[in-house]
Amino acid sequence: MSLFVHKYGGTSMGSVERIQNVAKRVAKWHAAGHQVVVVPSAMAGETNRLLGLAKEISDLPDGRELDMLAATGEQASSALLALALQKQGIEARSYAGWQVAVHTDSAYTKARITNIDSARVQADLDAGRVVVVTGFQGVDDEGHITTLGRGGSDTSAVAIAAALKATECLIYTDVDGVYTTDPRVVPEARRLKVLSFEEMLEMASLGSKVLQIRSVEFAGKYHVPVRVLSSLTDPAGSLEQEMTSGTLITFEEDKNMESAVVSGIAFSRDEAKLTLLGVPDTPGVAYSILGPVAAANIDVDMIVQNQSVRGTTDFSFTVNRNDFKRTSDLLQKQIAPAVGAQEVVADEKVCKVSIVGIGMRSHVGVASLMFRTLSEEGINIQMISTSEIKTSVILNDKYMELAVRALHKAFGLDGETPAFPAQ
Amino acid sequence: MSLFVHKYGGTSMGSVERIQNVAKRVAKWHAAGHQVVVVPSAMAGETNRLLGLAKEISDLPDGRELDMLAATGEQASSALLALALQKQGIEARSYAGWQVAVHTDSAYTKARITNIDSARVQADLDAGRVVVVTGFQGVDDEGHITTLGRGGSDTSAVAIAAALKATECLIYTDVDGVYTTDPRVVPEARRLKVLSFEEMLEMASLGSKVLQIRSVEFAGKYHVPVRVLSSLTDPAGSLEQEMTSGTLITFEEDKNMESAVVSGIAFSRDEAKLTLLGVPDTPGVAYSILGPVAAANIDVDMIVQNQSVRGTTDFSFTVNRNDFKRTSDLLQKQIAPAVGAQEVVADEKVCKVSIVGIGMRSHVGVASLMFRTLSEEGINIQMISTSEIKTSVILNDKYMELAVRALHKAFGLDGETPAFPAQ
Repeated sequence: MSLFVHKYGGTSMGSVERIQNVAKRVAKWHAAGHQVVVVPSAMAGETNRLLGLAKEISDLPDGRELDMLAATGEQASSALLALALQKQGIEARSYAGWQVAVHTDSAYTKARITNIDSARVQADLDAGRVVVVTGFQGVDDEGHITTLGRGGSDTSAVAIAAALKATECLIYTDVDGVYTTDPRVVPEARRLKVLSFEEMLEMASLGSKVLQIRSVEFAGKYHVPVRVLSSLTDPAGSLEQEMTSGTLITFEEDKNMESAVVSGIAFSRDEAKLTLLGVPDTPGVAYSILGPVAAANIDVDMIVQNQSVRGTTDFSFTVNRNDFKRTSDLLQKQIAPAVGAQEVVADEKVCKVSIVGIGMRSHVGVASLMFRTLSEEGINIQMISTSEIKTSVILNDKYMELAVRALHKAFGLDGETPAFPAQ
Repeated sequence: MSLFVHKYGGTSMGSVERIQNVAKRVAKWHAAGHQVVVVPSAMAGETNRLLGLAKEISDLPDGRELDMLAATGEQASSALLALALQKQGIEARSYAGWQVAVHTDSAYTKARITNIDSARVQADLDAGRVVVVTGFQGVDDEGHITTLGRGGSDTSAVAIAAALKATECLIYTDVDGVYTTDPRVVPEARRLKVLSFEEMLEMASLGSKVLQIRSVEFAGKYHVPVRVLSSLTDPAGSLEQEMTSGTLITFEEDKNMESAVVSGIAFSRDEAKLTLLGVPDTPGVAYSILGPVAAANIDVDMIVQNQSVRGTTDFSFTVNRNDFKRTSDLLQKQIAPAVGAQEVVADEKVCKVSIVGIGMRSHVGVASLMFRTLSEEGINIQMISTSEIKTSVILNDKYMELAVRALHKAFGLDGETPAFPAQ
């Protein structure tokens, strides 16, 4: 007998029929003798409906009341799931975050879980019950309801799995796992059977939407094995097959890792590049430029400062494309005059393409294969940034798909055998 | 400075615009220096929507999970109202039943309030806040969410008013008070400015839908003055006028009561009559008949046993029309053979008409004026039941409107001056 945490997203909970399918799937696990805790999201569209009502009332709604409002979506879907489980002949009970309790800080609408009392849930499990716990929410020290922000149900599930020392946390979703890259761009993309936690973290931060990045961080901190798998398969299908399906995000690097140095290609069009040309190269100039940007609550991603030539330097950085207009205005009107820059060049038409692989740690030549591949396709690299297990480049965004396909092929991700095998 | 509890029903909370109107009205009371606690129902239609989903999943849904589900309706509307109050520039905070806490027993879907911790709400009021408390719900000793049953928000409001020793509990609704009878039947019906608690209790139990009967019982137990008034008036209108509008349900009989012995005419078509003819008149026969009815969870209202003639008697009683078929079957198949009755006569086409008035206590001839009036209209009385402050009759239901109009006129409720004045 093992303990599993299942998480189902809003689409999987999107109708009475789908909730009944979730109940059938959970019943299969329960019938096999496993203890199961289920963490559902709100029914698809419900959170948007609620927040839409709040938006009609106030354009700057209070966070505490927003959380009070939004938390009802998961409470309703949890109760409905418990009813559907009971209909399957299973003793089931649903709990809101505060009932468990899932303790959080008081940062309304984006609270962080501080700890979880798992005694009550464990007692129900030991009594043979399936326990449904609302995702996305918790309670602060003063007894106010909090929510964890969009996608927070993933984090709830992983945190509950950590507290209960679950064998695995299964994230059921509308894709059947994590792919080497987006199959909509590269039809040859392969599903990864196993992925290291660190790679998943990079993939998530680089724009892969499969898992919320905070849930991956949580899994990393508490060493929770997480499996991403499909909620669209037959709920009554083989349990054995289901238990090894999808993508397992693991901490046991040696044992199960696939033998490629690059596991995946991530990419994002949510990028914009800004360059200050001819900035007098004096100490503290980076801070003079980026200080006001940070003060305006704009996240800076990549930063490149060129070699100083004749006492001036060019300074480039990227931001999320949503912040492009604000950042550009800030540079033109305030920062460029202040630091004495000659010109501001703002480019909204860029993209970021990254190769991610834990094997990069121990292999040389990985980045140069990337640069050679792009060069052979005639693609100019505008900026480069590297970390231990990833290399990212900024390109003109018209080349994005071409670059991703070329890199996917060059690193052997198309076929079964990697072209750059690990030793 | 006084403390008032406002309760708003589902229709008053039925849209963003209406919620904004509620906020404007509450803001007016707050601006005049009063402390206000607001108890809203769920937005109109929301509770039915939620319970409809549960019904799709299970025809016999578990009470605990139903309450978990249904309680979300009031939590959402309370948060939205708090946001609307903040938009009016008022510091406002919403609490779910468990946060207050409103303690109840564990009778899911029809729980009863056992006690209320008012310290948290009082502290917020003393800090100048308006407090919004979800109606309809509470928490049991084990921390499970409970609901009070349909119309339970009235009871929540009165219970909170009792706990906070509020000056008045104001029930805002889509009618502007309690009437001498239903104005749809008698256009000459007058609004009562004051009504005693006991009269309201009779009116509620006799089918007046203005207030939930348990809320009236609660008001009686804790001596909470309750005012029923309209939520459809201009929210920015005169506060002074609003404070004396509607109908006040009071405990100070001498001071403010209007001078009629009969305050109102109540009526209901939800009745059915069953008669056992020729029952051998032996000791214990009433129990032999009604015991099995009670065991089947059927509420019996009026009971009449005629004088025994030649050793047999006729035994009649009324039940809610929804229980008619079940009761009739039970009599035919089980009870009549068991007690040796000659015949079962079942009549679904009856109604109950009642006159209610605290003045009946000290006045003779009230009931006979009722009987004379009905006789003058040629209406046959099938059963009679009396209490200290009401007289009810069962009639063929085709006479209902005629009887109500005739009685309304006969007891002087049509005009300004009662025909049967109190001394």
